[in-house]
Amino acid sequence: MLNAADDAFAEVLDRTGITVKPAQQAYLEEPRSLYNGTSRHVALPTGTDEVSRIVRICAEARVGIVPFGGGTGLVAGQVATDGPAPLVLSLEKMTAIREVFLAEDAMVAEAGTTIAEIQVAADDAGRLFPLSYASQGTAQLGGALSVNSGGLNVLRYGMARDLCLGIEAVLPDGSVLHALKRLRKDNTGYDLRHLLIGSEGTLGVITAAALRLLPRPAETATAFLAVASPQAALSLLAICREQAGELISAFELISAEALAFLAETQPDLRQPFDEAPEWSVLTELGMGPGSDPESHLGTIFERGAEAGLVLDGRVAQGDRQRAEFWALREAIPHANRRIGSIASHDISLPLSEIPAFIEECGATIRRILPCRISAFGHLGDGNLHYNVFPPEGEARDAYMDRSPDVTRVVHDMVAACGGSFSAEHGVGRAKSGELERYADPAKLAAMRSIKAALDPLGIMNPGAMIA
Amino acid sequence: MLNAADDAFAEVLDRTGITVKPAQQAYLEEPRSLYNGTSRHVALPTGTDEVSRIVRICAEARVGIVPFGGGTGLVAGQVATDGPAPLVLSLEKMTAIREVFLAEDAMVAEAGTTIAEIQVAADDAGRLFPLSYASQGTAQLGGALSVNSGGLNVLRYGMARDLCLGIEAVLPDGSVLHALKRLRKDNTGYDLRHLLIGSEGTLGVITAAALRLLPRPAETATAFLAVASPQAALSLLAICREQAGELISAFELISAEALAFLAETQPDLRQPFDEAPEWSVLTELGMGPGSDPESHLGTIFERGAEAGLVLDGRVAQGDRQRAEFWALREAIPHANRRIGSIASHDISLPLSEIPAFIEECGATIRRILPCRISAFGHLGDGNLHYNVFPPEGEARDAYMDRSPDVTRVVHDMVAACGGSFSAEHGVGRAKSGELERYADPAKLAAMRSIKAALDPLGIMNPGAMIA
Repeated sequence: MLNAADDAFAEVLDRTGITVKPAQQAYLEEPRSLYNGTSRHVALPTGTDEVSRIVRICAEARVGIVPFGGGTGLVAGQVATDGPAPLVLSLEKMTAIREVFLAEDAMVAEAGTTIAEIQVAADDAGRLFPLSYASQGTAQLGGALSVNSGGLNVLRYGMARDLCLGIEAVLPDGSVLHALKRLRKDNTGYDLRHLLIGSEGTLGVITAAALRLLPRPAETATAFLAVASPQAALSLLAICREQAGELISAFELISAEALAFLAETQPDLRQPFDEAPEWSVLTELGMGPGSDPESHLGTIFERGAEAGLVLDGRVAQGDRQRAEFWALREAIPHANRRIGSIASHDISLPLSEIPAFIEECGATIRRILPCRISAFGHLGDGNLHYNVFPPEGEARDAYMDRSPDVTRVVHDMVAACGGSFSAEHGVGRAKSGELERYADPAKLAAMRSIKAALDPLGIMNPGAMIA
Repeated sequence: MLNAADDAFAEVLDRTGITVKPAQQAYLEEPRSLYNGTSRHVALPTGTDEVSRIVRICAEARVGIVPFGGGTGLVAGQVATDGPAPLVLSLEKMTAIREVFLAEDAMVAEAGTTIAEIQVAADDAGRLFPLSYASQGTAQLGGALSVNSGGLNVLRYGMARDLCLGIEAVLPDGSVLHALKRLRKDNTGYDLRHLLIGSEGTLGVITAAALRLLPRPAETATAFLAVASPQAALSLLAICREQAGELISAFELISAEALAFLAETQPDLRQPFDEAPEWSVLTELGMGPGSDPESHLGTIFERGAEAGLVLDGRVAQGDRQRAEFWALREAIPHANRRIGSIASHDISLPLSEIPAFIEECGATIRRILPCRISAFGHLGDGNLHYNVFPPEGEARDAYMDRSPDVTRVVHDMVAACGGSFSAEHGVGRAKSGELERYADPAKLAAMRSIKAALDPLGIMNPGAMIA
């Protein structure tokens, strides 16, 4: 059993020179306001050695630790809601970009650096750091790696883990894992980097990372295409692959509902079509110098139209319209929040299962309650944000008691299709029950063994992921 | 302590319907003939359920298991040389390509399938499976994943792990890990796929994998370029990146010695230059339809020549010459074996450290013994095969007692540069001492904890990696 990080414990930390302060509300809430943390103190280390000291002191005192990044996580991995109040360990003071290695296309940054700051540093060096999502201005590197975040460019560049060459981390016994290698190849033992990435702070605290930088595409073209159906979108993706191979930076699916919610909540946002198409695709090609991605998009458009896949389309004219297209895409989650969903899901599916899933899952849910469904997301990665809303003009409150039933339908069907109930948001505390229900038993058993082996006292992010 | 897989044990297996046969020499040797296995029996399961049964029986009898793929591993991960003779578990009968998912660019194959067979199946489906190396006709998928193999196209497509979406594996307790998902995104718990990949059979036996397929480049161009120095090669790589971004499929560095050894041992092989340049680069661009990679290579050549980086060059005229260029590259390891090295090393370094390393390491070694040094390999990945040979006309036998000293110099210098003593070959039994010496202590401790947690009886590939 753990002990609480109470005032006396805070004093112990303080006496060793660690900055500790009372945990304000910002450390105790999460973006959806569904969970409230119980922690009373937050420690603010300024370096890896201090993180190590904090973890050792916590281990000795049997005090739990909740690692805290930008606080943007969507599964309550960053707020402990029960048990003895843990210490919040915020990496916010560790914001150094330690070095940019231009000749190596690599950068070493500390965990508290925001994703946007890393993007800017990469850009200043003439490179691209492709991890990109709506919360990038607040989300921190440590958090991004701990949940293995995804976002808009996974199709081309992979998840956070794929952009990480090495990590420095403090393990649950306070020892420092020095694995900050800037190597593309290193087959010397178990890949602890990949084990810690995505472990949501339950196996240690990532304090810094060596990151891959990529060439910036010299020429970019973006199109908003109305497509006949999700199946048509997939067929169009195949055409894109034939035409542009690995140079498709994004391929997003957007439902008519998503655009309608935008029109309703943010009428000033310019929409690409006068009438919202049933389904549309936002795609972007990024190519090398001397290339002409617009002409490739033109060919894709033509081939798609000939095949009856594409009904209408707009190719962004210049950077401003491109930014408008993306602003529209990034505003969707806001609009959804304004409308208020009964249940939201971050699912992934084998690509070929998606069209049937959208049809059958929608039909099944509509049999149990009247609703509007908005599916949007990273089709190229098989990742849908699949959200269920009350009928037009009705508030969600009357339906919230049905939320678990809806989620059960969605996640059961996802599991039956070989999909995942959490594509990019992680497990945290919000979905630890789902992990218990859906995870392969051998996987769950192995996870428990590893957790017990590396964190025998159970101090690292107690209650997250594997409760 | 483990028990030997003796005749009585073989009979136990046999009675449960498992095919067991005496272990012939092929299961007891490895390509460099430096190690000889002690095993007396090999089990030949035909499916995952049989692998599970074998592992359970071994666990009960406390009998060690050496998973065996194509036997091409270069670090003796596949032969147990001491302790009670373990059972060899060969996956050679599990060769099904279970399914190709064209719309998903994915394939599920069993562990005994050779890399070449997977390449062919991908090609038949109009796709590319980019893992590629000299032993691909014999090397099997299970082995490739267990050592996280690399090869010629890592620069563009990553290591074996980067091409694997999911695995099926039998864990040390005989339970089956069902993680054969064909998902690009799945953030539901610890990434056991990445933990098992590269663990060299010490944490379980991979029985099947879901693999990524890629678009085949529509247009390919290949060049052999004489460069002024390793630093010039790196500067040329930067130019390539500016010109072709992520579409550089390979960027190999070749020393004059490597070409000289080829001329000496395989005089019939046509060489690109009349006089072997001090350093040369073999590079390939693979681009989409309608592109002209040859003109890009031309630009790269011109820019390189203007900057004094490129001294001479040949662009392959047609597929036949391209094949000749690659045959030359792939013949280098053969030639090296014919000459006979005193010590060979599979190292990786941060890219910017390579030029100084080549200079300083060579000077240091030459201070302790007269020798010829051939460095060649995957420069784009920072991976050098750095081999030391006796002076011309002398046999290596007289120098073999110096081999450990040479390796100590090389690996110490690699460690000082933040490099790796095993870039792509793994640890096995040949380099477990190096792991002990060079691994970060926190990493080693965590590896031991994980091994003890998942394989408490120590039956999985005993003596490999962490002895």
